[in-house]
Amino acid sequence: MERIANGIWRLRFGQPETHTPVQLRETEIKMEQLNKLECTGTPPFASHEIEIKEAARGIHIELPLTAEEHIYGFGLQLHRVDHTGRKKIIRVNSDPVADTGDSHAPVPFYVSTAGYGVYVDTSRYATFYCGTNLRKGDSEHKKQEQKAVGTSEIELYGYQTSEGNRTVVVDVPSARGIDVYLFEGPDMATAVGRYNLFSGGGCLPPAWGLGMWYRAYSAAKKEDVMRLANTFRQDNMPVDVFGFEPGWQTKAYSCSFVWDESRFPEHEAMLEELYGMNYRVNLWEHLFVHPTSPMYQDLKPHSGNYEVWEGLVPDLSIPEARRIFAEHHSKEFVTKGIAGFKLDECDSSDFVHSNWSFPDVTEFPSGMDGEQMHNQLGTLYQAAIQAPFEHAGKRTLSQVRASGALASPYPFVLYSDLYNHQVFIRGVVNCGFSGLLWSPEVRQAESPEDLIRRIQTAVFSPMALLNCWRIPNPPWMQVDRDKNVRGEFMDNYKETRDICRSLFEIRMALIPYLYTAYARYYLEGRPPFRALVMDYPDDSNTYAIDDAYMMGESILVAPIISGMTERSVYLPKGTWRCFWTGVSYEGGQAYTFSPGLERIPVFVKEGTLLPLAKPQQCVADDTAFDLTLHQYGDEARACMLYEDDGQTFEYRKGQFNWVKVSIAPDGNIAIDRTGTYEGRRYNIIVTAESG
Amino acid sequence: MERIANGIWRLRFGQPETHTPVQLRETEIKMEQLNKLECTGTPPFASHEIEIKEAARGIHIELPLTAEEHIYGFGLQLHRVDHTGRKKIIRVNSDPVADTGDSHAPVPFYVSTAGYGVYVDTSRYATFYCGTNLRKGDSEHKKQEQKAVGTSEIELYGYQTSEGNRTVVVDVPSARGIDVYLFEGPDMATAVGRYNLFSGGGCLPPAWGLGMWYRAYSAAKKEDVMRLANTFRQDNMPVDVFGFEPGWQTKAYSCSFVWDESRFPEHEAMLEELYGMNYRVNLWEHLFVHPTSPMYQDLKPHSGNYEVWEGLVPDLSIPEARRIFAEHHSKEFVTKGIAGFKLDECDSSDFVHSNWSFPDVTEFPSGMDGEQMHNQLGTLYQAAIQAPFEHAGKRTLSQVRASGALASPYPFVLYSDLYNHQVFIRGVVNCGFSGLLWSPEVRQAESPEDLIRRIQTAVFSPMALLNCWRIPNPPWMQVDRDKNVRGEFMDNYKETRDICRSLFEIRMALIPYLYTAYARYYLEGRPPFRALVMDYPDDSNTYAIDDAYMMGESILVAPIISGMTERSVYLPKGTWRCFWTGVSYEGGQAYTFSPGLERIPVFVKEGTLLPLAKPQQCVADDTAFDLTLHQYGDEARACMLYEDDGQTFEYRKGQFNWVKVSIAPDGNIAIDRTGTYEGRRYNIIVTAESG
Repeated sequence: MERIANGIWRLRFGQPETHTPVQLRETEIKMEQLNKLECTGTPPFASHEIEIKEAARGIHIELPLTAEEHIYGFGLQLHRVDHTGRKKIIRVNSDPVADTGDSHAPVPFYVSTAGYGVYVDTSRYATFYCGTNLRKGDSEHKKQEQKAVGTSEIELYGYQTSEGNRTVVVDVPSARGIDVYLFEGPDMATAVGRYNLFSGGGCLPPAWGLGMWYRAYSAAKKEDVMRLANTFRQDNMPVDVFGFEPGWQTKAYSCSFVWDESRFPEHEAMLEELYGMNYRVNLWEHLFVHPTSPMYQDLKPHSGNYEVWEGLVPDLSIPEARRIFAEHHSKEFVTKGIAGFKLDECDSSDFVHSNWSFPDVTEFPSGMDGEQMHNQLGTLYQAAIQAPFEHAGKRTLSQVRASGALASPYPFVLYSDLYNHQVFIRGVVNCGFSGLLWSPEVRQAESPEDLIRRIQTAVFSPMALLNCWRIPNPPWMQVDRDKNVRGEFMDNYKETRDICRSLFEIRMALIPYLYTAYARYYLEGRPPFRALVMDYPDDSNTYAIDDAYMMGESILVAPIISGMTERSVYLPKGTWRCFWTGVSYEGGQAYTFSPGLERIPVFVKEGTLLPLAKPQQCVADDTAFDLTLHQYGDEARACMLYEDDGQTFEYRKGQFNWVKVSIAPDGNIAIDRTGTYEGRRYNIIVTAESG
Repeated sequence: MERIANGIWRLRFGQPETHTPVQLRETEIKMEQLNKLECTGTPPFASHEIEIKEAARGIHIELPLTAEEHIYGFGLQLHRVDHTGRKKIIRVNSDPVADTGDSHAPVPFYVSTAGYGVYVDTSRYATFYCGTNLRKGDSEHKKQEQKAVGTSEIELYGYQTSEGNRTVVVDVPSARGIDVYLFEGPDMATAVGRYNLFSGGGCLPPAWGLGMWYRAYSAAKKEDVMRLANTFRQDNMPVDVFGFEPGWQTKAYSCSFVWDESRFPEHEAMLEELYGMNYRVNLWEHLFVHPTSPMYQDLKPHSGNYEVWEGLVPDLSIPEARRIFAEHHSKEFVTKGIAGFKLDECDSSDFVHSNWSFPDVTEFPSGMDGEQMHNQLGTLYQAAIQAPFEHAGKRTLSQVRASGALASPYPFVLYSDLYNHQVFIRGVVNCGFSGLLWSPEVRQAESPEDLIRRIQTAVFSPMALLNCWRIPNPPWMQVDRDKNVRGEFMDNYKETRDICRSLFEIRMALIPYLYTAYARYYLEGRPPFRALVMDYPDDSNTYAIDDAYMMGESILVAPIISGMTERSVYLPKGTWRCFWTGVSYEGGQAYTFSPGLERIPVFVKEGTLLPLAKPQQCVADDTAFDLTLHQYGDEARACMLYEDDGQTFEYRKGQFNWVKVSIAPDGNIAIDRTGTYEGRRYNIIVTAESG
């Protein structure tokens, strides 16, 4: 067992494959930050407790799992939070229809309530059997209970969770060797933090990325885009990022990566106009390169041996392929002010009516096969698109539909075509276990109520996105798609719009708080959005909670789904106050709340000094936030705010401040700035009582 | 390319694995029958047209697929009939929730409308990409059409079926070598017949197996069983086979394989009573052996290294394990008159809420791993259970929930917990492509209409089964489960019962016709139930039909689903007559029928002399059928009927007859028996006009 970093060990067996997430990584382990963490010097398991074997099928690993432990992680799991007793395959797939492990962003990493993490370094479709089976003979001496005869499936099958001490079995097909990494705690959150710092730390988005996002109609033309952009500003609907869907390209499915001058004549002038209104522009694309693309001939020798949708699949693990791809993006888009991209369909799909992508046996010039490429494509693509922004010295926050291991440094947020609101909330709960970000995007709604409920989840999520690619007019004007396309608006749309605006403004108010949470993600690996179990691993009431989560250090969010008029919220130990009213609740128990349509249950830890900004229409490069500090409880801890230029990479050189705001015993505000960033992004103007 | 048999070739690459369906087979190729078929002497492809490679992931095969071809097969596919343009994984799985290839009985065999079959001899989770992807560069010179921008998923994605000539790519993981078998046509049905004869021919069930089946309540006790058994005979509801669900055993999930004397005191006397009423008894079980089973200690050294539901997983590829298993079944059950078994949960499950089974990395004493065992378990289990019946010289027809390659000789019918009626009908359409039988069992119903619609499909299917394990009283007395459990019956249940009885009687009338179809399955490999495309491969209107099928040589069945009052039926070229009324329809076109609740559209080929038996309550060992020959059309071809003792294996020694019945020009019946069977099972008593 080799010590890799403070609290991180590696167990090597045989000859590991050459194309694994660690081998392919471009980011550096955050050694300095890891060294700041306490650690025992003892790995979570001794070498002899972990069994590793090779067989025709590949590598087989078996790790201990005690009776009391519960395990979490495996990436963006949308169907379940607690994976104990379940089988999970680490296979990238859009629209995972059942709880199989398939995911937009599967990650071979898990974390235990016992306070450690395990990462298996593979791009293969590894399967984790999390305490599903006992070994032969283990049940021989159990007490035999006579059960009643089952007359339903659930009575007969139950769950195949084995009782007592069991194991986690990991099946890594095709491999002839493996590296297993162990991450010390002492608790879940620290183990996850170590994994994120091992990955290179969390990403720090530009400040504007935390504002509101709006993606426009797929078939929109220049005049439609400008009409929307003007309307948002006229109606005071905060929007930071304006997204173009496939129609901006001359060819899509597969892609030309060229502006379509028929729909967008003089597109550079249009962009300048949008920039002038302080919109950031995001362009949709996917990876598959159509024969009409200017990159086609150059990328052809560096592509896999099968096409997808008549397009090349470039091998982005090859530096030359990445260079060609990045240079086109740099020259045509990033230097022309494009702020980010939406990287679609890098996930592949087995479960939809029209399954698609390249075969698992595809041969790539690097020597990777299709299976490995499927699980790596999301991160390779993110790295390729990140490059021109690095070159330009400008941060992006972008979107991606697939990701995987060691992805936390990439400023990309996941999304999905799946559209169950409950599943989307579960994504927010789960993403933090594995160094991922997730946007429960609002795309369509059954009713104004559904629209509002979904927006509420979105504004309390890693990315607040309305993805209106199927409707030409904003959803608050008409939720019915057909009527929206025909331009028929709801009678009471202004009422709906006003509620939406107030929710957008809450998001805009939360930006400094969220930005600080992201800074901790970058510096400490601490996820900005977390399952309750991660902060309360000793409280078994939190183990199965998949409909509420922590946002930053102090806020607990419990979204509501259309049709619900009340919901139960379990508040962990400690005192909590209602975000909206300041009313106090003692934790360690569940309460039922019915906050009406305009609110969802949101709670703030007692003793929090919560900074809320005066909502603006957008975050411009020079925006400074006017902050009101809301005090929850009679005595409040100091509020720590992270401050930097919000847009460049100077923070990596230490150009940032920590702003400590506290209330002195005399009631005065004390502001203490430490750091070398010379700008000022926060005007602390007033404090207020909670509620 | 090695010639294996008449019209069958093998292409070997590298060193094939030691545990494949062909290596593990216990049945013999039907050389004599194969030699009767015409063949060109030229394989469907030349060796150089098939590319086979080895890579880290395993073996990769690529075969031609022309633009016009459509391909079918891959076992019991429940989600689609025509697999062209689709990816299919050959992985055994209950409850396949999407069109991925996962199936109770996946088979690495496909057949083309161009008139050939391909079988890849592997127990691995092989994936077939059926014309999904072109090779790199293939799209470069295509005409580029400018399409409108898509504003919905289907517009954007379409199907990823590649146009023009493409390939079938087969991915066989872990293997270092492979045998590919090619089956000549000249047509689809002949290619399938060759595959079935290569497998050992189709099974020939006992005559009673083609009657009605009823499985009783899981929690039934002796008195409940006898009450049901008596009621069926009193009410003249034909039932041949009476099935016991898990409650007959002292322990189930996992199994003891021992009668529970508390629920079934003096069970041997009960069985004698049932036998005296001419019931055949079928016992539920699964493979997992509980510590309390008398077989446990003997099987332990021959079992895999993980448990399922606290039970052993015996390695039935080991002769000693199979001997122990078979001997217990022989001694305790078969010699005591048990007529068959229901082999449950040999499929494993990834898609249900309570996924279960042994890991793919399980080590079995034979050297097989869990992946191979999953795909082989169904056929190994069938072989083990078939053994005591072979020993006793008594045929069985049994049930099994998993099957695979080369399974046609086993007299086992597949079933599933999936319960969509449309999906169940599709199973009947698809099973015949791959040497499988399928029962669209009736388990529960939303309404009397739904019950009747489902029974109509069942009586025109390979096995006519009511699986009432969740209800203590017959469904025709009460369809609502809760009321059924409480003993509350429908007001008009006698009306429903009468319709059910008349449907059961149709099944009983069809037994001689069906038995003859099964004889052709045995002798020629011709499936008794077939998709229309198999008989009409040149008619592209049949390619996508997944809701109608051929039963035997002359009957086309088009089931109706609850809620439908009419349906469209495409009749292939030729003249067809309504089974019920004799009305004539010219084929090559679709018609809409609304036959009312008591009937479904069933058609008979013009010129058929259809034998229908006088319905009996059951098929006893000495039953002879009183046959009425129904003439469809003015001139009828001779009717061929197969005849043997219906219960032993003497037919394998040639102890059977072909009974040719024809109408002489003077209207008299001419009966011509050829063969050496001395008994007489058919009394041909009368002819009737159709309808």
